[in-house]
Amino acid sequence: MARPRIAVVAVGGNALTREGEAGTYAQQWRNATKVAGAICRLVEAGYRPVLIHGNGPQVGNLSIQQEEGSRLVPAQPLAELVAMTQGAIGHLLSLALHHASTGTLGVVDIVTHVEVKSSDPAFRNPTKPIGPFLAEDVAGKLAAERDWVVREDAGRGFRRVVASPEPKAILEAAAIKELASKGFLVIAGGGGGIPVVRRGRSVSGVDAVIDKDLTAARLATSVGADTLVFLTGASNVFLDWGTPRQRAVAEMTAAEAEAHIADGQFAAGSMGPKIIAAVRFLADGGQQCLITSSRHLAAALAGSHGTRIVPTAGRMPASRRSAAAQ
Amino acid sequence: MARPRIAVVAVGGNALTREGEAGTYAQQWRNATKVAGAICRLVEAGYRPVLIHGNGPQVGNLSIQQEEGSRLVPAQPLAELVAMTQGAIGHLLSLALHHASTGTLGVVDIVTHVEVKSSDPAFRNPTKPIGPFLAEDVAGKLAAERDWVVREDAGRGFRRVVASPEPKAILEAAAIKELASKGFLVIAGGGGGIPVVRRGRSVSGVDAVIDKDLTAARLATSVGADTLVFLTGASNVFLDWGTPRQRAVAEMTAAEAEAHIADGQFAAGSMGPKIIAAVRFLADGGQQCLITSSRHLAAALAGSHGTRIVPTAGRMPASRRSAAAQ
Repeated sequence: MARPRIAVVAVGGNALTREGEAGTYAQQWRNATKVAGAICRLVEAGYRPVLIHGNGPQVGNLSIQQEEGSRLVPAQPLAELVAMTQGAIGHLLSLALHHASTGTLGVVDIVTHVEVKSSDPAFRNPTKPIGPFLAEDVAGKLAAERDWVVREDAGRGFRRVVASPEPKAILEAAAIKELASKGFLVIAGGGGGIPVVRRGRSVSGVDAVIDKDLTAARLATSVGADTLVFLTGASNVFLDWGTPRQRAVAEMTAAEAEAHIADGQFAAGSMGPKIIAAVRFLADGGQQCLITSSRHLAAALAGSHGTRIVPTAGRMPASRRSAAAQ
Repeated sequence: MARPRIAVVAVGGNALTREGEAGTYAQQWRNATKVAGAICRLVEAGYRPVLIHGNGPQVGNLSIQQEEGSRLVPAQPLAELVAMTQGAIGHLLSLALHHASTGTLGVVDIVTHVEVKSSDPAFRNPTKPIGPFLAEDVAGKLAAERDWVVREDAGRGFRRVVASPEPKAILEAAAIKELASKGFLVIAGGGGGIPVVRRGRSVSGVDAVIDKDLTAARLATSVGADTLVFLTGASNVFLDWGTPRQRAVAEMTAAEAEAHIADGQFAAGSMGPKIIAAVRFLADGGQQCLITSSRHLAAALAGSHGTRIVPTAGRMPASRRSAAAQ
């Protein structure tokens, strides 16, 4: 078909700064080139990717640097730190994509704002920990000074917690769609997007972190993508994880995925949001969602690996339905 | 005419964090809304602005935070810090433009890489101070550890100095031009752009700071702008500044501007690069360059204020040539 197939691809911040890594530039560059290689396979398979990345480890480090420097220069609000990570990680991924494609891809990183509602219930119950662990007295002082909410976290000290509201609209969606339609590989929505709330005809930054996977689904719908890809540490989605009945899923329908969510099959901080995002994207007209690792992406596109979630069983080839996973 | 007149508008980092300000978000927001108001006047006058901003005070603060936090998390390279300021300042200006235009402008901030040559003589003689003032022993230690060049600066201590090479090409120029042609107000080239050098078919970040005014000229030519605007603290360019013969310039040709440069009329760190950039832009086919303050921009567009630099005298109305400046 003449119209290119746009695929929104979501990459975790942990894919760039891995567990146990400090997050040096050299570490991030090495990891970014692996992600970029997978994206090039997607381009070769005829897709036009729009890339969205997480920023957990990076915004965490930046928060620490802001606090450590605060006796000398003013710390900036969280929305601004998210914007900084969009610049920094977008820059890194841009160069990695230039490198992996030997300069053949036109890559553009767009600083992206995502509207949330100030009435979102998440603002009444902030749950997302960000930034450094703090001693109780320091945490109390910062909470008083800056109107932070702080909570004890995992016995390791106190941390600031912020709301994780629902992404409602992507302010730069029209520009992203325009560039993707012209053949650019766009990087957008980094860290789930810079959270903003509407006040009349104005928008303001707000202290929150939007789930990157939910923003990915919103972005995919907004730019008319037919495919949504989540690159994860695992090759597949698994059911009954960690039990003797553990098995990889080759393919499931949105309805099956919803039933598994209801059964509590997926972890809240990890696979859960991806499955919820997949279901939303398919309900909004998306054709398929793939969940797999960078390494297995080419095989997943060819249908021989990874987990594919589709709107209804009727739209899947029977051969795939009955195929055993890996 | 049917084709919109694209105007590249350059705003100094000092317009966002002013002399004597610490650079809090509130200060930056207040200053950004003033810049945004001026940009809206430009839109009302029929121009389509592409906005480029400086980042001196902001990248300075970020460098301090990175150093202060370095015992806990790794400091990132300078190119990455420039990328962070593009995200942060672009975000700030995006929201300020939404605010000033009551949401009628489609604003997009693009993370922008600018190619420099590794053979640029600036790399053999770094002169641009960045980041905090350091004690001599700390400076020596950092120089040894990180391959920095440090210099004594103005009797206040030691500072890192980096090269300020010539901007040769803007990697995202095609995307910026595409969006501007579709009616978006694009923010690009922040801080002079993220400096990169080409190595084969790959590009890598490099420790340098590109002059934002020179990048503005390169950007204006690359996107087919007919107008280049420098917003400064002063309403006009002045000749014989600080002498009894001091006078504002209403209009001059590129040849006249070059003669004034040769006469040493303009300060190297301030008006000098703007005049050099204006001359380059006009030599490359630009129609006019305006230099004025945010407050006087509307009047400057109407021809009753500011300094206009044009390619040749023949293209100026005689009335303007003889008009006395303010």
